[in-house]
Amino acid sequence: MTRQWEEFKSRALSKLSYAREHNLADEKIFYLLDYINSKEGYVTTSSCSGRILLLAKGPSKKETYMYKKWHDKATTNSVVDAINSYDGPYPLYYKVDPFILHIVAKTPEHAHVILRICKNAGLKRFGMQLMRNFYLIEIQGTDKLEFPIALCNCNMDEVVGLSNSLLERTWSRTKLFYLSAQETLK
Amino acid sequence: MTRQWEEFKSRALSKLSYAREHNLADEKIFYLLDYINSKEGYVTTSSCSGRILLLAKGPSKKETYMYKKWHDKATTNSVVDAINSYDGPYPLYYKVDPFILHIVAKTPEHAHVILRICKNAGLKRFGMQLMRNFYLIEIQGTDKLEFPIALCNCNMDEVVGLSNSLLERTWSRTKLFYLSAQETLK
Repeated sequence: MTRQWEEFKSRALSKLSYAREHNLADEKIFYLLDYINSKEGYVTTSSCSGRILLLAKGPSKKETYMYKKWHDKATTNSVVDAINSYDGPYPLYYKVDPFILHIVAKTPEHAHVILRICKNAGLKRFGMQLMRNFYLIEIQGTDKLEFPIALCNCNMDEVVGLSNSLLERTWSRTKLFYLSAQETLK
Repeated sequence: MTRQWEEFKSRALSKLSYAREHNLADEKIFYLLDYINSKEGYVTTSSCSGRILLLAKGPSKKETYMYKKWHDKATTNSVVDAINSYDGPYPLYYKVDPFILHIVAKTPEHAHVILRICKNAGLKRFGMQLMRNFYLIEIQGTDKLEFPIALCNCNMDEVVGLSNSLLERTWSRTKLFYLSAQETLK
């Protein structure tokens, strides 16, 4: 099982390196990924530090696509311009997605340590799932918005201001998780 | 541990009975709770079948309160009337919450069975957490909305129509989980 684990971890780290080299990864969360990946028995497989998103929501998942996203705070103008210049076939949804992190653990014991770290950090949305050989922990923030902006006329200064403050909150919660991990994993 | 488990399960079932007698529980999900609770090694501790919600969102969780909720499909009039007659101190948020279910399992093996049931049912949001002695599985739908309706003028016929169809979707997903559980737990 150890050999299988080493191979799994090494493949996951290669994918992450590739994503970093090609600017496909979200650098705001690298400090946390690097910390977790430096520990024996853990590897991160996907993550997002939080984002503002305009989603073209089709009748099925296959037809749904990201029209525009911001991984950092947005300005009202950039969001309003994007909404006004949208001419896709599906209704536009406005979303704020909180941070999300997937960690794979080698053993149930390794997984349980992460669950305790989440609890100590005061997180609400996290949990372990089973993989074929390993244990997947999904960790997620709760600072979010999601609504069909195509059906609404909003005060966009306020909506974007609120969204930016939700991003700040999700970044602090990510930091809390990091500090809690540092305390426990040493 | 078995005695401790029996006591824990019996306390949880008493709470549920109390909630049912006093109409504090959400009857649309009773079929599922009763099924899970009939199985050895499992007990449900909280649940919601899905709802439409108007939330008065204060500066902290303590000051936030539910202004109005619908556990069944809503009419545009009832929602619009509620919004128009709100005069609380905090901005009003409009939410559709998907179904949520908490199951406590006696052993890790019991918990892993539920995780497999969730996966087989095609659910996305679920996971195991640790309790002092037992294992908590949180299961949640993904059909949701959440936004500050105080900042928006929406086409409420469409928003309520969409919300009602999200409720229908979350009810079907609950049913899928139930069917998957029946196949596995027998």
